[in-house]
Amino acid sequence: MGNDCIFCKIVKGDISSYKVYEDDFFIAFMDIFPTAKGHTLIIPKEHFVNALDTPTHIAEKFYPIISKIANAIKQAYNADGINIIQNNGSASGQEVFHSHVHIIPRYDNDGFRVHPPARLQITPDELKLDANKIIEAIQGK
Amino acid sequence: MGNDCIFCKIVKGDISSYKVYEDDFFIAFMDIFPTAKGHTLIIPKEHFVNALDTPTHIAEKFYPIISKIANAIKQAYNADGINIIQNNGSASGQEVFHSHVHIIPRYDNDGFRVHPPARLQITPDELKLDANKIIEAIQGK
Repeated sequence: MGNDCIFCKIVKGDISSYKVYEDDFFIAFMDIFPTAKGHTLIIPKEHFVNALDTPTHIAEKFYPIISKIANAIKQAYNADGINIIQNNGSASGQEVFHSHVHIIPRYDNDGFRVHPPARLQITPDELKLDANKIIEAIQGK
Repeated sequence: MGNDCIFCKIVKGDISSYKVYEDDFFIAFMDIFPTAKGHTLIIPKEHFVNALDTPTHIAEKFYPIISKIANAIKQAYNADGINIIQNNGSASGQEVFHSHVHIIPRYDNDGFRVHPPARLQITPDELKLDANKIIEAIQGK
């Protein structure tokens, strides 16, 4: 895409990065604003905005790489757990609009909470209505 | 796996769920403790603990399904964004130890923060050392 995409520039080498992985379709590099030491980003080399517009031929290669890098980071940091997070759209926290997946090492009692403390109160009837809405949207595709 | 896995029971139909999607390898259903309306879980039918032990033949099918369901939920809820989250290990917030990916609709200014407000201060030298640790772990695989 555009000449203004910082991650496209990282892919091309026009902006330097601390790269940990590269193949024909993806690179992984250190997040320079890490949530925890070892926080790594995995991105497709080709420009897609996020998971919502990633075509199948890239999508089918993505999760195996995520799994591989997550395992490596868990081992490298002797982490107790790993969060895998992809934010899609600015409302979700996405800040760079080139698809990227966060791999974040976690430790027992590190105090970083992904889910909010309060969850919704919801009834079975509401859940059923929710399910039907989503089923309709899937079928409309 | 075990007879005690609640998600294996949902796959088998021994526990009911509000299912929104099913194919030969995955099902998706409503999270009964939703963070937001429309919060959906996608799981492989076969029992794996999380992304760290998911074999390639399942992994390569996972992200295309994630993308499909995320698009449907965005449309069904007219959401501004979508978080895709997989917690791996109890330290990361994983509560059911059958691999599952959260799809969570998001809205402008909904106040749900995935990343913690304070990020680490880190130097380029530290990032370089971090990258090398991860590269070694990847190469050791």
